[in-house]
Amino acid sequence: MADEVILLSFWPSMFGMRTNIALEEKGVKYEYREEDVLYNKSPLLLEMNPIHKMVPVLIHNGKPVCESIIQLQYIEEVWSNKNQLLPSDPYQRAQALFLADFVDKKLYVCGRKTWATKGEELEEAKMEFVETLKTLQSELGDKLYFGGDKFGFLDIALIGYYSWFPAYQKFGNFSIEPECSKLMAWDKRCMQRDSVAKSLPDPEKVVGYVLVLKKLYGIE
Amino acid sequence: MADEVILLSFWPSMFGMRTNIALEEKGVKYEYREEDVLYNKSPLLLEMNPIHKMVPVLIHNGKPVCESIIQLQYIEEVWSNKNQLLPSDPYQRAQALFLADFVDKKLYVCGRKTWATKGEELEEAKMEFVETLKTLQSELGDKLYFGGDKFGFLDIALIGYYSWFPAYQKFGNFSIEPECSKLMAWDKRCMQRDSVAKSLPDPEKVVGYVLVLKKLYGIE
Repeated sequence: MADEVILLSFWPSMFGMRTNIALEEKGVKYEYREEDVLYNKSPLLLEMNPIHKMVPVLIHNGKPVCESIIQLQYIEEVWSNKNQLLPSDPYQRAQALFLADFVDKKLYVCGRKTWATKGEELEEAKMEFVETLKTLQSELGDKLYFGGDKFGFLDIALIGYYSWFPAYQKFGNFSIEPECSKLMAWDKRCMQRDSVAKSLPDPEKVVGYVLVLKKLYGIE
Repeated sequence: MADEVILLSFWPSMFGMRTNIALEEKGVKYEYREEDVLYNKSPLLLEMNPIHKMVPVLIHNGKPVCESIIQLQYIEEVWSNKNQLLPSDPYQRAQALFLADFVDKKLYVCGRKTWATKGEELEEAKMEFVETLKTLQSELGDKLYFGGDKFGFLDIALIGYYSWFPAYQKFGNFSIEPECSKLMAWDKRCMQRDSVAKSLPDPEKVVGYVLVLKKLYGIE
């Protein structure tokens, strides 16, 4: 029996983009189903992720796997014969998992604050956002990708944020480029990959989505 | 050369307890070093975890691994010859990782609110705390441990909170027992294991520690 793989996601979700990219990199045939996360979650989403009721959900032969970082590990283990994403060495693997966790703890939270807060909170968030990118940039060093010459796990974990950068910068009124030129070059390198280009939305569309969110939450 | 394994931790940390238990279960020889997290972090901690500056840090032959769940995965991979902690099946492993993530997203946050908040926020936190335990209890079902007959990964991820339950209940003025009797029986079962008994502090000592925290943060 062929594998049935369904991805429930929502186009602006940087978490969903990860799973999309990983499936593309592995050459897995899957069905992408767009969820209306803001106004009308599908019964399938509620059934498959009853705990968080959030995308992305990877459904493999009827069984759900939730949380994007766990999905990436699952995809790596199940489709292990093509395009290794995580390093084989346990220490290098732990480092990649640690940095992906760092990305979510810092970039997601600070990124949200760039359009949802004001005053001191906004200023602190912008500073922390750039500091986080600088830390990641020093991890990248002079390598092509985070894992070395090959596009892999941490690249996948981080690149989805790229489509949000113009929105963060516009609403937070700051610029990432001057201090993070190496990271910006890495972004462009990743965008040349089919798996990434196919999975990331137009950043201008994300700007429009943030306007919708601001209106929805009553943020001026 | 023998492995040099050092664990930097702090006795009330439920995260540090996990790594302690896993090392004990694997029979790894290690040196436990207590950190004064509140007032005087050691230069070694700051050097080994410059990003978060938090315990636990597992130092293996001079190299740091941070974040308890990542440490458990690392320990499982490096000392793979004794006492398997995670399921071999990729789907079961993804489920265990998902529930451990759920534990930290819900129990830690709600648990903290039982002693740090008041009024409506406190009432909501208590309700969510018990709901989370009930969800975990239904995952446990009639099994001895979360993975089945054998103590493993999710047991290790959850059991450290047990030493905090009396503090949560005392300061939040609520009771876990009536709705979670199966989970309470699981707790007692886990406590009979040497690895757990050696790694968890006296819950009354945690009550005293919360009093210190309340004073430190000016919470009445």
